[in-house]
Formats: sequence, C-alpha cells, structure tokens
Amino acid sequence: MASSEIETLTQALARLPGLGPRSARRAVLHLIKRRETALEPLLKALGVVSETLATCSVCGNVDTTDPCGVCADPRRDGRSICVVEEVADLWALERSRLFPGKFHVLGGRLSALDGVRPEDLTIDSLIRRVEAGGIDEVVLAMNATLEGQTTAHYVAERIERFPVRVTQLAHGLPVGGELDYLDEGTLAQALRARRPLG
Amino acid sequence: MASSEIETLTQALARLPGLGPRSARRAVLHLIKRRETALEPLLKALGVVSETLATCSVCGNVDTTDPCGVCADPRRDGRSICVVEEVADLWALERSRLFPGKFHVLGGRLSALDGVRPEDLTIDSLIRRVEAGGIDEVVLAMNATLEGQTTAHYVAERIERFPVRVTQLAHGLPVGGELDYLDEGTLAQALRARRPLG
Repeated sequence: MASSEIETLTQALARLPGLGPRSARRAVLHLIKRRETALEPLLKALGVVSETLATCSVCGNVDTTDPCGVCADPRRDGRSICVVEEVADLWALERSRLFPGKFHVLGGRLSALDGVRPEDLTIDSLIRRVEAGGIDEVVLAMNATLEGQTTAHYVAERIERFPVRVTQLAHGLPVGGELDYLDEGTLAQALRARRPLG
Repeated sequence: MASSEIETLTQALARLPGLGPRSARRAVLHLIKRRETALEPLLKALGVVSETLATCSVCGNVDTTDPCGVCADPRRDGRSICVVEEVADLWALERSRLFPGKFHVLGGRLSALDGVRPEDLTIDSLIRRVEAGGIDEVVLAMNATLEGQTTAHYVAERIERFPVRVTQLAHGLPVGGELDYLDEGTLAQALRARRPLG
C-alpha cells in the first residue's frame, strides 16, 4: 500500500496520545493532501521546537528559552512560587491565568510503588530557591491523589524551617459538582474544610 | 505559558483530523518530554515524506515514488484496474490485501452540488489506460453513495465501447449486519441482488 516512508510517519504519529493507528492514517492522508497548508507548517513548527527546546534551569518548565517565558517575565510576582508535579500542570494553571507568581516543576511525585524518591525530583533546587530569599509564599499545587498529597507534605516539611507561608490548593466540591455524583473522599474533604458562609 | 513556537506547533497539530486543541496540547507535551524517542523520529519521518512525496503519474496514488509502489510492483496483475474515488479508498482496499490488480484514483466524485465535473476527475486518464489495451476488467469501487454511484455509472458509460469487463463492488448486508438495524436502502439493495443459495 503505502511506501515504508509513509508507514514510518504513520507509526510516529500513532504513538502520540489521542491518536491510534487508524486516526494516524487519516492524519497522514490529511497531511499528504494538504502539503502546503498542513504538512509544511507542521514540519516547520516541529523543526523550530526541536531546535530551541530547553528545560528552564530555574523552574523546570519546558520552553524554547532558558530561563523560560514565565521566569523571564518581569511582570510576574517573584515572591510566590507555585509548586506543581509536571509541566502539564504548570500549563494548565497558566491557561487559567489565575496565578500571578512563578512556578517550580518537581518533575513527578513521590511514589514508593514506582520507586520515585525525593532525590529523583527537583525538591533540592526548590529548597535552594527558597533559601536564596525574596520569597513570601509557596503554593503547593500537587494533584489531589495519595501520591500528590504525600509529596506535598514532604515538600512542606522541608520548607518548614524557612520564614515563608506554605499554602495548598483548596480541596472540595468542583464547580458544578452535584453531591449525588461525587465520591466519598471529596465529600469528606469538603465537609471537613467547611467555611462560614460569606 | 508556552512560547509562541510551542503554540504554533500545538496549532499545527490541532488541525489534524482526530486531534483538537486539548489533545494537541497533550501531544506536544508528549513530544517535548520524549525528545529523542518521539519528537526527533516524527520530525525525521515528516521531513522524508515531505521531500519525497509524489502523486503517481499512472494511477493517481500518493507515494514517495513515481510510479507508486503498487504500479511498479511486477507481481500485481496489470489486467485489472480497480477505480476508486480517493487515495484513502485505495489504501483501505490495500489493507485488506484482497485485490491483486492495479488501481486508478479519480480524485473525487461527480457532484452537481459541489460543482465537480468529469474534467475535474482523472477519468480521461483512465480512458487512456483502457485504450492503451492489455486490460481485461475494470472494477468500479466507488462509495455506495448517490454521488459515488452517479460517478460509477458515468465511468461505466465511458468505458462501454472498449472490450473490457466492467464490474462493481457488491452492495448488500454488511458482514455482521442485523436486518433490524439496517436502513431501507441497504435492505432494498440486498433483496434486489439476492442470489441462489450456494
């Protein structure tokens, strides 16, 4: 059917999350039929990113510059650092445009099961940033999973001795969440953390 | 959040069929985290295809060689030509490995609505292939849609004057199809084309 070159491209695309062999084939046909408007732009964009891709030496974000766009932005409040597990989490928070400070990407979460220890994450580099001073608040924004929360507690303990405020994202009902459909863990969390009405 | 280069790549990926803005972002993160094993292979495969992509001057297939792999294969039976609407249809038939002959890609279907006329398709080039001789059978494998069938009839009429057998894919119940769930058109077709039992 298709030459081995086209087959290779199909397989490379099929390995992307969200695409399987079938949709990768459709994508390849799409690219092939639209050489100027789809294939060439994608090739160029990939090439540029491949050439300039860098991990930020300050926060661990991935960007085409080092320090990354967030760290280099003078309008961001350098006094608060939001600690996240993965680059994807940083991007998710950035899309919401709610956090005006800087970030720190741990590169994962502590996990006895997967054998991830503190030294496998960028916790030491976070401590050095806090140690260097000029920071008022560290916001722990790990996932609300067992491993995420274990990591949060570990990081909180390590920062304890510095004069910074350590906070954590609130846990409770998601917006639009209906009690009837929520799991018990979320309900328990929401009840425990109940607050006086405005 | 991400630099404009990464944003450009996300948008290029989001335009692929089967990917939206959200899954394109996930794909970009996947590529960025796996630079050696995902980004570079995809970049290379795209580059090779972009450089070598060619439309077969014989049958209209898209491949990295001209004539394409199917036309150049000496083991294929050049006496039968299977006529399809699109390259995707040729690939679908090739995946089934059921047709041992060669192909002809029309590049679309006749459509009064979309203003597609016979001269917009590669019908003349098909006629020239038939005229050149050495062909016993032309298999019409257009889609079982109104426009596909109109196209099939038009092509059949044009080939009529040559001494070749013109056949068409059978229409009827799909394998595993339950009468109860099939549309009336398919049922009518299957009934009309009923055959004596083995």
